[in-house]
Parts: sequence; structure tokens; C-alpha cells
Amino acid sequence: MTPTATTPTTTEPPADLVISGCSVLTHDDRERIGFAHDAAIVVRDGTVESVTSAGAVRGLAAGERIDARGQVALPGLINCHTHAPMVALRGLAEDLPTGEWFNDVIWPVESNLTARDVELGARLACAEMIRGGVTCFADHYFAMDAVAAVVAECGMRALLGEAYFSSQGPRGRERSLEFALRHRGSADGRITTALAPHAPYTVDDADLAATAELAHEHALPVHLHAAENRDQTDTSLARHGVTPVQVLERTGILDTDVLIAHGTGILEGDLPLLERAGGRTAVATAPRGYLRFAWPTTTPVRALRAIGVPVGLATDGAASNNSLDVWESMALTSLVQKSTEGDPRWLTSRQALHHATLQSARAVGLGDSVGSLAPGRRADLVLVDLTGPHTQPVHDLAATLVHSARAADVRTTVVDGRILMRDRELLTIDVPAVVRELGERLPALVDRSHGRRVQDYDT
Amino acid sequence: MTPTATTPTTTEPPADLVISGCSVLTHDDRERIGFAHDAAIVVRDGTVESVTSAGAVRGLAAGERIDARGQVALPGLINCHTHAPMVALRGLAEDLPTGEWFNDVIWPVESNLTARDVELGARLACAEMIRGGVTCFADHYFAMDAVAAVVAECGMRALLGEAYFSSQGPRGRERSLEFALRHRGSADGRITTALAPHAPYTVDDADLAATAELAHEHALPVHLHAAENRDQTDTSLARHGVTPVQVLERTGILDTDVLIAHGTGILEGDLPLLERAGGRTAVATAPRGYLRFAWPTTTPVRALRAIGVPVGLATDGAASNNSLDVWESMALTSLVQKSTEGDPRWLTSRQALHHATLQSARAVGLGDSVGSLAPGRRADLVLVDLTGPHTQPVHDLAATLVHSARAADVRTTVVDGRILMRDRELLTIDVPAVVRELGERLPALVDRSHGRRVQDYDT
Repeated sequence: MTPTATTPTTTEPPADLVISGCSVLTHDDRERIGFAHDAAIVVRDGTVESVTSAGAVRGLAAGERIDARGQVALPGLINCHTHAPMVALRGLAEDLPTGEWFNDVIWPVESNLTARDVELGARLACAEMIRGGVTCFADHYFAMDAVAAVVAECGMRALLGEAYFSSQGPRGRERSLEFALRHRGSADGRITTALAPHAPYTVDDADLAATAELAHEHALPVHLHAAENRDQTDTSLARHGVTPVQVLERTGILDTDVLIAHGTGILEGDLPLLERAGGRTAVATAPRGYLRFAWPTTTPVRALRAIGVPVGLATDGAASNNSLDVWESMALTSLVQKSTEGDPRWLTSRQALHHATLQSARAVGLGDSVGSLAPGRRADLVLVDLTGPHTQPVHDLAATLVHSARAADVRTTVVDGRILMRDRELLTIDVPAVVRELGERLPALVDRSHGRRVQDYDT
Repeated sequence: MTPTATTPTTTEPPADLVISGCSVLTHDDRERIGFAHDAAIVVRDGTVESVTSAGAVRGLAAGERIDARGQVALPGLINCHTHAPMVALRGLAEDLPTGEWFNDVIWPVESNLTARDVELGARLACAEMIRGGVTCFADHYFAMDAVAAVVAECGMRALLGEAYFSSQGPRGRERSLEFALRHRGSADGRITTALAPHAPYTVDDADLAATAELAHEHALPVHLHAAENRDQTDTSLARHGVTPVQVLERTGILDTDVLIAHGTGILEGDLPLLERAGGRTAVATAPRGYLRFAWPTTTPVRALRAIGVPVGLATDGAASNNSLDVWESMALTSLVQKSTEGDPRWLTSRQALHHATLQSARAVGLGDSVGSLAPGRRADLVLVDLTGPHTQPVHDLAATLVHSARAADVRTTVVDGRILMRDRELLTIDVPAVVRELGERLPALVDRSHGRRVQDYDT
């Protein structure tokens, strides 16, 4: 922590926000996680101006002050792969294998979706995420104009992409591009966009290749599912003689900046392709769903780290994950990785926090602007209360944060310097109103009597 | 739900507590989980007098009333195996294999333990558990008189046992018996006791056999670790030619009412021994630690259920689990069992709730008095708030409870009809005072310069 010039002067205008008395999670020049204690954060114009000592900000003029003693400030969590509006389907399709989950429930129900359902779902999802300390999410869904409007209104940051299948014909891909161009940089720059083909098993090679070209032409990243599970990889090999990652390579997707969801079916032979990919490649891991669906493998985090691929934390949608609790994803990633690697020394709490901060920021293409609390970064941060009995005593603050603290311990959530939740009170979303209207719409939404579905799951 | 006579009469004294407007988790006569909506619970003399409709209790005289609309009442969670005072060591020994965790940190530190440390740790642990909806815990530790005093004072229910190793000589076993006899039935019957040998790898066959005899003589159950992991089973086979479960059988422990912690090293050949055990046999599963220590297997819940052995939920101590969050254990048990069995249809939310309620109650020997909300059962219950955005909408209340709700959603905790937490406020424990004094004692507690340990881990 380098104390910077924060002594009040007569000429300097007041800071917008000063947070003082907390511990602050820091990254050193080798990206090692540390903590500054009795510290303070000065925010101006949506940016972290300084991380300094509590003493240094005493008397500093500020539009807003937060006394954060007993709390820890950390970069806001980033949900690197979700389908936010699917909170409307939370708990609707339980205890099913992947194919039945898609074909019998989710894809039939999604053929009923209206923009209003998506809007209400997104609003409920943003409320859940803000309360759980999430400041940014990468969303991949339909009717995304509605999601963009909710992001603009509620104050979160997001990487948004309009999903498409080849079964929609060329209009699907075109709409994905139009959405990306229409919303890129909107909401005061808080919205970034991606092209969002669904997956190699639902989008054909020609569409993927065209997507890669559009990505280059318009300097857009690509966000898609690939090698979600081992079955998909095995089927791809049996039908096409190539793995899903090989499909991404031969269609040029790996030459774009690509965010791959899940990747539990990535094989060892895929790793060199990912390592020499021409674009920025990242993977999002959402381990709860892999356990729930009884997939035989999880994201190969250790192998991906060995070749320099960032692995961001994610929840997937709440129809499979039951929550958008990235805090839980952080703990589960640590636990599942230890178990899968057979190595209790692997994926320590500090590693988990590195995934939650810088790696997640890089995964969503914001590695230079968020993911750490340092001068010049956007002021996306959360304050976590550690005074509860379940987080005391503190022998190792990193372990306390990852394995003892919970989403509900987040007291305050700030994005771009704006307070979206203060002392557990949501300031930008009216949850009861959303729940009421969504509840009225549910019978029509979940009706499956029509026998339609938006797509077939047939890997 | 059978409405029972709760109509006010002029002769009936007021009920002690009436909770109304909530949904209530129920078990039918085949123990299937259901929910009564817009329901009410009437409590008298620490007992559930009736579970009825909200309308039936309107106007009923009551010493205390709780309006629980938007909440769900369920039997209080039971932590079937923990070492409550070890919250003092939360986060002290991270990212280590089992042997190093014991030998290099935990057992050296435990040689410093004083009764005051145990008392403060137990108090902090009870605060955490009450806040997380736990009404009863099975504790296995040292200086247990201090734990019993805390249980008496804070109002929880507990099955307590004074742990011992054969390395302590015969006094260890004698103290365990003396403790069990001294405290059995204390705290108005909320304390039950067990003999608590540590494990077959730290207590020799002669001591186990003597323990079994004492258990019979004094009608006491036995609570111990056995076949915690596969390594222990393999070592037992290599050194003694028998599995840990075979040791329990040949020493007579399986003829007692025995609660076995973990059992991830139970082999298929052990199952017939457990099935024909002469006593009431149960296993406690605490899956978080198995992931953390990268043990290769988990508790064989499906096999144990197939032979009728109840499997209760547990956290183990917070030095390995980082919390005493039984809510998390419930979700993780479901997820890890699905994954381990390769079957997404196994361990549904309703099964998880059956483990959390009746099976856990049976595991701690209280199958007839707690574990369900029905007339005549002790009034141990929690009220869970489902109005948060992360628990809406509700398509499947069992799934919402197991996979979306969190420990922090518990608003009110009741044991024996007494409210221990109301609207998140703890009524029987002063957490800041405990944290302050424990903090002062930590340097002496965690000192390892003496080079001693209470025991060697050498399975």
C-alpha cells in the first residue's frame, strides 16, 4: 500500500466517496493477495483515486463517507457466465440429467419467454447479485435489450451477448451482432458486449466461422459454451472426429477474444490449442452445476492455469445452480479443485481470491479496469462484515473470506463509485414489486402444453 | 396436517408460544416431506401441542406470538458431529493434508487448551449455530464440563461426550464415563451424553471393549470417529488385518448405540456388519472436509440407506470445515452424493431434508423427541425467511430450502419452546464479549514452541 496524496487542500474539490477504517484486499506487483489494515479508499469520478491509511483521510472533504470498521473491502465479485433472467425458473427442473433438463423443461419453457419476463428476471437477478457482492456479470440469453435496460437502471456492470442457435437461421447471428453494436459502451460505459453463439453443438461450423469474422471486423469478443461436459466432447469426436475446442480452432473462434463457459470436457490434447490461441482466451467455471448434473469431470483449472488461461468464477443460470451466489462458487471452486486434483495444497484461499478478482476481470475483458482496488481502477467494490460469530476469530483473512464468509455478509456494494446497496438495503431495485409481477406471469411462462421447445439437446 | 383442538376455551391456560402464517415442513406417516401452508404451530411446556391452520389460532391466548408470514417453519437443524470449541482455531491450519493438519498444527495447539478456551469457543460456536438454524449438536471434545455449562446457559440441545485416547491411560476412559454420568439429563433434559473414544486408530481394542461394556452397563451411547478416510481403512487392514468397522464389531462397539463420524473409508464388506449390528447404528457425514482434505471417497450414503442406517448431517469442527454451517452441509451432501453416485436423480431435496430432520434426530438418539414438527415432539424449530431475491420465485419449496436458502435466512430459532434468536437477534449469547476475550487468549492458545502434541496421527 502506497499512501498517496490525499491531504486536503483548499483547491481540491471534495472526493465523491471515502470509505475508511476497513481492511482492503490488495494485489502486489506480482499479483499476490495481501491486506492493508485500518485503511481507506478514496473514490472520485467513479474511479479509485487512492488506497491509503484511515489516518490519511481524516478531515478529507467527501460527498459521502462510509465508516467501515470491522469490514473488509474487496473488488466486487464478477459472475463470468450466467443467464440472469433464468432466476424465474429457479427450482423448476430439479434432479434431472442434462438432456432431460434441457429437452423436457428448460427449452420448452423458454419458448414462452417474453421481453417482460426477461426484464423481470434480470431485475430479480441483479438484486440477488448486488446483495451477494457481485458488481459485474457476463450474461448470455435472449431478449437482451431488456437485460441491458435493467443493467443501465440498476447500476451494475455487465458483458452482454444475445444468444443464438443455427436453428434460427442467419437472423440469429445477425441479431446477436446488432445487439452487440447497439449496446456496446452504453450505460456510461458499464455495458460491454459480445457475440454469443450458444455452443458448437447448436451452432454449426459455418455460423461459428462467420461469427469469428464478425468479431474481428467489429472488434467484439465471443462468449459461448464449449466442451461443457465430457459427453459433448465424446459425441463431437464420434460425429465429427474433432473435439469442441478443435471446432473452435478450425472455425477461427480461438483467434478472437473468447470466453468459454464450463470446459469440463476439455481434453489434454486441447490444451496446446488453447495455449497458442491468437486471441485472449478465458474459461468460466461454475462447479455447483457439474456436481448437480453428476458430470464426471470439472473444469481443468490447474491445467488451464499452467498454460496461462485465466479461469473466472461463475454460477451459470439459477435454473441449474439454484442461486447466483458467486461467493459459493468461490468456495466450491477451491473445494472441488482440491478434491479433483487429490491435493489439499492446491487452490488455496489466496488462489481462489485471485480467480475471483484479476482472473475474473480478465475473463470478461475488463482486466485493465476492474478486478483490483488500486488507483485508476473503476470503483467496483464490496464491503464484507466479519463481525459475525461464523467469521471469528480471524487467523487467516483470506481463508475467512473464502471459506467462512457468506454472500449475506456483504453489507455494501459499489459500482463505478455509486452505492447500489448500503447496509444490506438495495437502493436501485424494488424486489417486492418484481416478485409480485413475476409471480403473476409464472403460470404462462412455465406452461409446456404446447409441446414446443426453442432447441433440441442432442450433443 | 391434522387440525387439533386449539379453539380457545375459558378453562385452558394460554399457550406459551403461537407461530402463525408460515408454511410448515411436515412428515406424513411414511415420512415423506410435505408442507402445510398458511399454517400455525402451538407450543406449550416446550412441546409442539399442534400444527394447525393460521385461522384456527386466531384469538388463541398465548404468552408469545410470532407472525411468520413469508417464512417456513422446519425442525431445527442438528449438527450430528462437531467439536464446537474448535471454532477458536478456524482458519489456523489451511491447505494441509490430514496428517500434517493434525500433527503440525491441531494436536500441538490442543495441548495448550484450557477450560476457559473451551468455554469461550463453545459459546462462540453456539452463537454461530443458533444463527444458522441449528438447535442441537453432537459434540466430541475435551474439557466438556465447560461445553455442558454453555449448553445449559444458551438454551441449545446437545449430545455431549468427553473424548479420550488410549495414550491417556485408563483415566481417559474413566473421565469420559464420569462426564457422561454427571451430565446425563441435565439442562432440563436438553443434555444427553455419550462415551467418546476418539477412534480405533487412537484407542486400542481393550479400551474399545471396555467402553462397550460401560455403554451397556450404564445404557449410554458411543460417539466416535471410525473409517474416517480410506487411508485409515487401508492402514488398519495392513497392520491388523481388519477394517475399522471390523474393529468396532469385534470389540462390541457395534452392539451399543453408536454414532460413527464420517465413515468415508467404509468398505462394501463392512456393510453387513453395520446392518446386523446389535445396537442403533448411525453415521454422520460432513462432506466439506472430505473435499478440503482431498479424501478420495465420501460417506457411502446410498449404501448405508439401503441397509437402513440413518445418515445425519454434520460439519465436523470449524478448524477443518471453516464453519458450523449445517445448511451448507445439507446442500453439499446432496451435491456430492449426486456427483459421487453419478446419478442426478439421487439425493433429491426431499431426501436431503429427510437427512436433516428425522435421520439426524435418530443419529443423535433423539428420534422420538425431535426431528419433526408434530404434536408431542419437543418444540425445536427454526423460521426461515424466503422473501429475499435469492429465494424467489418458489417453484419447489424443498429445492428452495436446500439449494437456494442459506443459513443467514434463518430469522428465528426456538429450542424446547424457548426463543434463542428472534429476527436475527441472539437472546442468550453476547458475541462481542466472547470474541474480545477469546482474542486476548489466542496468542497463548496457538503457541507451538513447546513441541508437544496431545496425540500423534499415525493411522
